Amino acid sequence: MNYASFTAADGSPTWGVIIDAQAYDLGPTGLNLAPTLRAAVEQGIFGALGEEFRTAPVRPEADIEFLPAITDPGKVICIGVNYRSHQNETGNAAHQKEQKAPTIFTRFADSQMGHLQPALMPATTNEFDYEGEMALVIGKQAWHVAEDEAFDYVAGYSAYNDFSVRDWQLATTQWTPGKNFPGTGGFGPYLVPAADLGDVTKLTLETRVNGDVRQKASVADLYFTIPQLIAYITGFTPLSPGDVIVTGTPGGVGRFMTPSGLLNEGDVVEVEITGLGVLRNTVVPSA
Amino acid sequence: MNYASFTAADGSPTWGVIIDAQAYDLGPTGLNLAPTLRAAVEQGIFGALGEEFRTAPVRPEADIEFLPAITDPGKVICIGVNYRSHQNETGNAAHQKEQKAPTIFTRFADSQMGHLQPALMPATTNEFDYEGEMALVIGKQAWHVAEDEAFDYVAGYSAYNDFSVRDWQLATTQWTPGKNFPGTGGFGPYLVPAADLGDVTKLTLETRVNGDVRQKASVADLYFTIPQLIAYITGFTPLSPGDVIVTGTPGGVGRFMTPSGLLNEGDVVEVEITGLGVLRNTVVPSA
Repeated sequence: MNYASFTAADGSPTWGVIIDAQAYDLGPTGLNLAPTLRAAVEQGIFGALGEEFRTAPVRPEADIEFLPAITDPGKVICIGVNYRSHQNETGNAAHQKEQKAPTIFTRFADSQMGHLQPALMPATTNEFDYEGEMALVIGKQAWHVAEDEAFDYVAGYSAYNDFSVRDWQLATTQWTPGKNFPGTGGFGPYLVPAADLGDVTKLTLETRVNGDVRQKASVADLYFTIPQLIAYITGFTPLSPGDVIVTGTPGGVGRFMTPSGLLNEGDVVEVEITGLGVLRNTVVPSA
Repeated sequence: MNYASFTAADGSPTWGVIIDAQAYDLGPTGLNLAPTLRAAVEQGIFGALGEEFRTAPVRPEADIEFLPAITDPGKVICIGVNYRSHQNETGNAAHQKEQKAPTIFTRFADSQMGHLQPALMPATTNEFDYEGEMALVIGKQAWHVAEDEAFDYVAGYSAYNDFSVRDWQLATTQWTPGKNFPGTGGFGPYLVPAADLGDVTKLTLETRVNGDVRQKASVADLYFTIPQLIAYITGFTPLSPGDVIVTGTPGGVGRFMTPSGLLNEGDVVEVEITGLGVLRNTVVPSA
């Protein structure tokens, strides 16, 4: 079942289920089962719905504005260079050797946008790039989680585009600035319950720019697996329902293409993951 | 005037003003001028109080438990290697050359603790270290702020101890894990209005471990100045009232001392900044 956060007819934020191109409003402007999709995760409503959703007010999917799948995560934890193919293309020796720990940076929640919302290319960059990734959303309080129990803490999965402002990212050793501009964390369109997906290592990820395939990988190729990531992260910071882990991008980002594959105004970037739909954002210049 | 966040007699969080070793309760359990000190900043109450605070319920400062000066910041933005003395001791060539941009990482709010609360040394580290710093708190919405207007956006200042778990910090290129363990961001005791302090570049910072001076610097020695930091940061992420910028630590951290000056159980670490009081935390082992 495809859950999403989106706007109601009056423009206010709500959430619901999208089936057969219809958006069923389960949030504040509809059945009001929970104020946000994050709260629905926290309250165990997410992933536990039966056919009762069909009694909700409904609008065509084409009429809603998608918001980030989780609009208000407490923590957005991103993993760097977590596919061997991307480790190799970076040319960074530290990323090419055997790594003992995942590379971790963070996004602020206000850097995110939803499916079909613009990817905002800042006026202050010459290097705007994409990174197609799979994201997971945490379902319950998690601290010092063992690898063999880690999947119990995952509520669901979504596509993510970790748009990166490379010159700001690489101005110093720490990547924070280039990963936190507003309108650069594409998240959606759907959040799909883990139970609906089965073995997520069988999913494949593909990133396209104006229809050209730039990245293609199997989730099985993650260098640090999802259980390893959850165990490592909860070894230093407690996670809560609605927190997001963005698992890393495979080879094929624009910066390392010859000639350059960096983004320009009007480029349409799509991240498609098996069973999670297509996340589409168009590059729009910003202040 | 020294503002602080602290616990009420019933253990619930409140905030107020501390004068002559008396804590005047201006929060939910007292005059209730605002729910939190962050809200008091946002509503313009912070820094604007006259003598009316003396009508508030009062308790001896010795009876309260200090909380992080701002308990619920939306963003905690930390600056790395921002004193030449610390750049030199790191031995990292990238930090010793002329830097064009500040090095920026982030803390989650739940990694913070108040004055006299324990500094939690994780069981999983052999390298627990201190970093005395000056922090500033943002007073109003800030985006693309010009350097010559930057001080208008600062509500107040506080001492900060950016306790660092060095082995986790340096396990990869990105420092996030070693900067986000619970009980490692010491913040307080007080938040002091900018208007009370005058020229903050005249303040001096000193860090002591069990009374031995380890770090001593003038705020004038910041490599990137406070206006430069605010201009740079608001060039990539919008700041809101209550957001925190931790401005960087001078030379003298434990990791680079010979012999090692890393911390052990029971060590008492103090950060003293002119006009901002003494932030004291004792190292306690944690899970």
